[in-house]
Amino acid sequence: MIVRKLQDIRKSDMNVKSDQWESARLLLKDDDMGFSFHVTTMYAGEEIRMHYQNHQEAVLILKGTGTLEDLGSGITHPLKAGVMYALNDHDRHVVRPETDILCACVFNPPVTGREVHDENGAYPVEADLIRVDATVT
Amino acid sequence: MIVRKLQDIRKSDMNVKSDQWESARLLLKDDDMGFSFHVTTMYAGEEIRMHYQNHQEAVLILKGTGTLEDLGSGITHPLKAGVMYALNDHDRHVVRPETDILCACVFNPPVTGREVHDENGAYPVEADLIRVDATVT
Repeated sequence: MIVRKLQDIRKSDMNVKSDQWESARLLLKDDDMGFSFHVTTMYAGEEIRMHYQNHQEAVLILKGTGTLEDLGSGITHPLKAGVMYALNDHDRHVVRPETDILCACVFNPPVTGREVHDENGAYPVEADLIRVDATVT
Repeated sequence: MIVRKLQDIRKSDMNVKSDQWESARLLLKDDDMGFSFHVTTMYAGEEIRMHYQNHQEAVLILKGTGTLEDLGSGITHPLKAGVMYALNDHDRHVVRPETDILCACVFNPPVTGREVHDENGAYPVEADLIRVDATVT
Protein backbone atom coordinates (compact mmCIF):
# COMPACT_ATOMS: atom_id res chain seq x y z
CA MET A 1 0.00 0.00 0.00
CA ILE A 2 1.19 3.47 -0.88
CA VAL A 3 -0.05 6.44 1.18
CA ARG A 4 0.93 9.99 0.17
CA LYS A 5 -0.22 13.46 1.12
CA LEU A 6 -0.75 16.18 -1.46
CA GLN A 7 0.90 18.72 0.85
CA ASP A 8 4.08 16.59 0.93
CA ILE A 9 4.07 16.02 -2.83
CA ARG A 10 3.80 19.76 -3.43
CA LYS A 11 7.10 20.24 -1.58
CA SER A 12 8.87 17.43 -3.46
CA ASP A 13 10.30 16.84 -6.91
CA MET A 14 7.02 15.14 -7.80
CA ASN A 15 5.56 18.67 -8.09
CA VAL A 16 6.25 20.10 -11.55
CA LYS A 17 5.61 23.72 -12.56
CA SER A 18 5.38 25.57 -15.82
CA ASP A 19 4.33 29.14 -16.57
CA GLN A 20 0.76 28.00 -17.20
CA TRP A 21 0.15 25.15 -14.74
CA GLU A 22 1.59 23.10 -11.96
CA SER A 23 1.06 19.43 -11.30
CA ALA A 24 1.52 17.34 -8.16
CA ARG A 25 2.12 13.76 -9.27
CA LEU A 26 0.64 11.46 -6.64
CA LEU A 27 1.48 8.30 -8.59
CA LEU A 28 3.99 7.86 -11.41
CA LYS A 29 5.10 5.08 -13.71
CA ASP A 30 7.53 3.65 -11.17
CA ASP A 31 4.62 2.97 -8.81
CA ASP A 32 3.48 0.22 -11.19
CA MET A 33 -0.21 1.03 -11.02
CA GLY A 34 -0.62 1.11 -14.80
CA PHE A 35 -1.63 4.79 -14.73
CA SER A 36 -0.37 8.02 -13.20
CA PHE A 37 -2.52 10.22 -11.00
CA HIS A 38 -1.99 13.96 -10.67
CA VAL A 39 -3.54 16.99 -8.98
CA THR A 40 -3.03 19.86 -11.38
CA THR A 41 -3.66 23.58 -11.18
CA MET A 42 -4.16 25.46 -14.44
CA TYR A 43 -3.60 29.17 -13.92
CA ALA A 44 -6.30 31.82 -14.41
CA GLY A 45 -6.04 33.80 -17.62
CA GLU A 46 -3.84 31.33 -19.49
CA GLU A 47 -4.62 29.68 -22.82
CA ILE A 48 -3.27 26.15 -22.55
CA ARG A 49 -3.05 24.30 -25.85
CA MET A 50 -2.50 20.54 -25.53
CA HIS A 51 -2.25 17.49 -27.73
CA TYR A 52 -1.23 14.25 -26.06
CA GLN A 53 -0.18 12.13 -28.99
CA ASN A 54 1.05 9.29 -26.79
CA HIS A 55 -1.34 9.29 -23.85
CA GLN A 56 -4.99 9.10 -22.93
CA GLU A 57 -6.01 11.42 -20.13
CA ALA A 58 -9.08 11.92 -17.94
CA VAL A 59 -9.57 15.18 -16.05
CA LEU A 60 -12.06 15.83 -13.24
CA ILE A 61 -12.53 19.48 -12.34
CA LEU A 62 -12.47 19.95 -8.56
CA LYS A 63 -12.53 23.73 -8.29
CA GLY A 64 -12.60 26.79 -10.54
CA THR A 65 -14.13 27.72 -13.86
CA GLY A 66 -13.10 28.08 -17.47
CA THR A 67 -13.68 26.58 -20.87
CA LEU A 68 -12.42 23.60 -22.85
CA GLU A 69 -12.31 23.88 -26.64
CA ASP A 70 -12.22 20.63 -28.59
CA LEU A 71 -10.25 21.61 -31.70
CA GLY A 72 -11.49 18.54 -33.55
CA SER A 73 -15.20 19.25 -33.24
CA GLY A 74 -14.95 22.98 -32.63
CA ILE A 75 -17.20 22.60 -29.59
CA THR A 76 -16.44 24.60 -26.44
CA HIS A 77 -17.49 23.10 -23.11
CA PRO A 78 -17.84 25.05 -19.85
CA LEU A 79 -15.62 23.76 -17.03
CA LYS A 80 -16.59 23.82 -13.37
CA ALA A 81 -16.43 21.45 -10.40
CA GLY A 82 -17.89 18.06 -11.31
CA VAL A 83 -17.18 18.21 -15.04
CA MET A 84 -15.03 15.33 -16.33
CA TYR A 85 -13.44 15.21 -19.75
CA ALA A 86 -11.55 12.31 -21.27
CA LEU A 87 -9.13 12.58 -24.18
CA ASN A 88 -9.88 9.16 -25.58
CA ASP A 89 -8.73 9.93 -29.09
CA HIS A 90 -5.62 12.05 -28.56
CA ASP A 91 -7.85 15.08 -28.99
CA ARG A 92 -6.29 18.46 -29.68
CA HIS A 93 -7.74 20.88 -27.15
CA VAL A 94 -7.37 24.26 -25.47
CA VAL A 95 -8.22 25.02 -21.84
CA ARG A 96 -8.86 28.65 -20.92
CA PRO A 97 -9.14 28.95 -17.12
CA GLU A 98 -11.14 31.98 -15.96
CA THR A 99 -10.05 31.30 -12.37
CA ASP A 100 -7.34 28.91 -11.26
CA ILE A 101 -8.69 25.44 -12.06
CA LEU A 102 -7.85 22.56 -9.71
CA CYS A 103 -8.31 19.12 -11.20
CA ALA A 104 -7.53 15.44 -10.70
CA CYS A 105 -5.93 13.87 -13.78
CA VAL A 106 -5.26 10.26 -14.79
CA PHE A 107 -2.82 9.32 -17.56
CA ASN A 108 -2.51 6.04 -19.43
CA PRO A 109 0.23 5.09 -20.04
CA PRO A 110 1.55 6.57 -16.81
CA VAL A 111 3.92 9.49 -17.11
CA THR A 112 7.36 9.08 -15.62
CA GLY A 113 7.35 12.51 -13.99
CA ARG A 114 10.36 13.61 -15.96
CA GLU A 115 8.66 14.63 -19.20
CA VAL A 116 7.15 17.99 -19.95
CA HIS A 117 4.90 19.03 -22.79
CA ASP A 118 6.96 19.34 -25.97
CA GLU A 119 6.51 21.88 -28.73
CA ASN A 120 3.33 20.11 -29.82
CA GLY A 121 1.78 20.16 -26.35
CA ALA A 122 2.39 16.40 -26.05
CA TYR A 123 4.16 14.29 -23.49
CA PRO A 124 6.75 12.05 -25.13
CA VAL A 125 6.57 8.38 -24.18
CA GLU A 126 9.30 7.34 -21.77
CA ALA A 127 11.00 10.68 -21.99
CA ASP A 128 14.11 11.14 -20.00
CA LEU A 129 14.85 14.33 -18.17
CA ILE A 130 13.87 17.25 -20.31
CA ARG A 131 13.06 20.61 -18.78
CA VAL A 132 10.63 20.99 -15.94
CA ASP A 133 10.08 24.67 -16.59
CA ALA A 134 8.87 24.41 -20.18
CA THR A 135 5.77 26.28 -21.22
CA VAL A 136 2.99 24.40 -22.90
CA THR A 137 2.62 25.96 -26.30
CA MET B 1 -13.47 13.46 -26.50
CA ILE B 2 -15.87 12.42 -23.78
CA VAL B 3 -17.39 15.13 -21.54
CA ARG B 4 -19.62 14.12 -18.62
CA LYS B 5 -21.05 15.90 -15.61
CA LEU B 6 -21.07 14.31 -12.18
CA GLN B 7 -24.60 15.58 -11.58
CA ASP B 8 -25.82 13.71 -14.68
CA ILE B 9 -23.95 10.51 -13.78
CA ARG B 10 -25.55 10.56 -10.33
CA LYS B 11 -28.99 10.34 -11.95
CA SER B 12 -27.99 7.53 -14.32
CA ASP B 13 -27.31 3.82 -14.11
CA MET B 14 -23.60 4.69 -13.89
CA ASN B 15 -24.34 5.59 -10.24
CA VAL B 16 -24.19 2.47 -8.05
CA LYS B 17 -25.28 2.35 -4.42
CA SER B 18 -24.77 -0.06 -1.55
CA ASP B 19 -25.63 0.27 2.13
CA GLN B 20 -22.12 1.55 2.87
CA TRP B 21 -21.16 3.63 -0.15
CA GLU B 22 -22.24 4.98 -3.49
CA SER B 23 -20.13 5.44 -6.57
CA ALA B 24 -20.62 7.58 -9.66
CA ARG B 25 -18.66 5.98 -12.47
CA LEU B 26 -17.41 8.73 -14.76
CA LEU B 27 -15.53 6.34 -17.02
CA LEU B 28 -15.97 2.58 -17.38
CA LYS B 29 -14.34 -0.23 -19.31
CA ASP B 30 -16.39 0.44 -22.43
CA ASP B 31 -14.86 3.89 -22.68
CA ASP B 32 -11.55 2.24 -23.62
CA MET B 33 -9.34 4.47 -21.50
CA GLY B 34 -7.56 1.53 -19.87
CA PHE B 35 -8.83 2.52 -16.41
CA SER B 36 -12.12 3.45 -14.80
CA PHE B 37 -12.64 6.69 -12.90
CA HIS B 38 -15.19 7.05 -10.11
CA VAL B 39 -16.37 9.62 -7.59
CA THR B 40 -17.32 7.63 -4.52
CA THR B 41 -18.98 8.53 -1.22
CA MET B 42 -18.29 6.25 1.76
CA TYR B 43 -20.90 6.77 4.43
CA ALA B 44 -20.16 8.09 7.93
CA GLY B 45 -20.11 5.47 10.66
CA GLU B 46 -19.62 2.46 8.38
CA GLU B 47 -16.78 -0.05 8.56
CA ILE B 48 -15.98 -0.91 4.97
CA ARG B 49 -13.78 -3.96 4.55
CA MET B 50 -12.27 -4.40 1.08
CA HIS B 51 -9.91 -6.67 -0.76
CA TYR B 52 -9.60 -6.18 -4.50
CA GLN B 53 -8.02 -9.39 -5.63
CA ASN B 54 -8.29 -8.52 -9.30
CA HIS B 55 -7.73 -4.78 -9.41
CA GLN B 56 -5.33 -2.07 -8.42
CA GLU B 57 -6.98 1.08 -7.10
CA ALA B 58 -5.89 4.61 -6.23
CA VAL B 59 -8.07 6.80 -4.01
CA LEU B 60 -7.75 10.56 -3.49
CA ILE B 61 -9.75 11.94 -0.57
CA LEU B 62 -11.60 15.10 -1.60
CA LYS B 63 -13.72 15.77 1.48
CA GLY B 64 -14.43 14.22 4.88
CA THR B 65 -12.41 12.39 7.52
CA GLY B 66 -11.90 8.85 8.73
CA THR B 67 -9.26 6.17 8.96
CA LEU B 68 -7.75 3.53 6.70
CA GLU B 69 -6.43 0.34 8.28
CA ASP B 70 -3.94 -1.68 6.26
CA LEU B 71 -4.65 -5.22 7.42
CA GLY B 72 -1.32 -6.43 6.03
CA SER B 73 0.89 -4.09 8.03
CA GLY B 74 -1.55 -3.33 10.83
CA ILE B 75 -0.94 0.41 10.30
CA THR B 76 -3.87 2.82 10.50
CA HIS B 77 -3.66 6.01 8.45
CA PRO B 78 -5.80 9.11 9.02
CA LEU B 79 -7.87 10.13 6.01
CA LYS B 80 -8.71 13.72 5.09
CA ALA B 81 -8.75 15.87 1.95
CA GLY B 82 -5.47 15.56 0.07
CA VAL B 83 -4.55 12.08 1.28
CA MET B 84 -4.04 9.54 -1.52
CA TYR B 85 -3.73 5.80 -1.03
CA ALA B 86 -2.93 3.22 -3.66
CA LEU B 87 -3.67 -0.49 -3.36
CA ASN B 88 -0.68 -1.60 -5.40
CA ASP B 89 -0.51 -5.07 -3.93
CA HIS B 90 -4.16 -6.13 -3.62
CA ASP B 91 -3.98 -4.95 -0.03
CA ARG B 92 -6.68 -6.01 2.41
CA HIS B 93 -7.96 -2.88 4.10
CA VAL B 94 -10.74 -1.33 6.13
CA VAL B 95 -12.03 2.23 5.79
CA ARG B 96 -13.90 3.73 8.74
CA PRO B 97 -15.42 7.07 7.70
CA GLU B 98 -16.06 9.44 10.60
CA THR B 99 -17.96 11.77 8.28
CA ASP B 100 -19.12 11.00 4.76
CA ILE B 101 -15.93 10.71 2.71
CA LEU B 102 -15.94 11.92 -0.89
CA CYS B 103 -13.12 10.56 -3.02
CA ALA B 104 -11.90 10.18 -6.60
CA CYS B 105 -10.97 6.57 -7.43
CA VAL B 106 -9.10 5.01 -10.34
CA PHE B 107 -9.25 1.28 -11.11
CA ASN B 108 -6.92 -0.79 -13.26
CA PRO B 109 -8.17 -2.88 -14.97
CA PRO B 110 -11.28 -0.75 -15.47
CA VAL B 111 -14.48 -1.98 -13.89
CA THR B 112 -17.39 -2.64 -16.21
CA GLY B 113 -19.91 -0.91 -13.93
CA ARG B 114 -21.91 -4.08 -13.51
CA GLU B 115 -19.88 -5.77 -10.79
CA VAL B 116 -20.29 -5.26 -7.06
CA HIS B 117 -18.01 -6.29 -4.24
CA ASP B 118 -18.38 -10.02 -3.66
CA GLU B 119 -18.28 -11.82 -0.33
CA ASN B 120 -14.55 -11.18 -0.11
CA GLY B 121 -14.88 -7.44 -0.73
CA ALA B 122 -13.42 -7.93 -4.21
CA TYR B 123 -14.63 -6.96 -7.65
CA PRO B 124 -14.64 -9.95 -9.97
CA VAL B 125 -12.90 -9.42 -13.29
CA GLU B 126 -15.32 -9.01 -16.20
CA ALA B 127 -18.30 -9.76 -14.04
CA ASP B 128 -21.66 -9.74 -15.67
CA LEU B 129 -24.67 -8.30 -13.97
CA ILE B 130 -24.68 -9.30 -10.33
CA ARG B 131 -26.49 -7.21 -7.76
CA VAL B 132 -26.01 -3.49 -7.48
CA ASP B 133 -27.33 -3.36 -3.93
CA ALA B 134 -24.84 -5.72 -2.32
CA THR B 135 -23.15 -4.69 0.89
CA VAL B 136 -19.39 -4.78 1.13
CA THR B 137 -18.62 -7.27 3.84
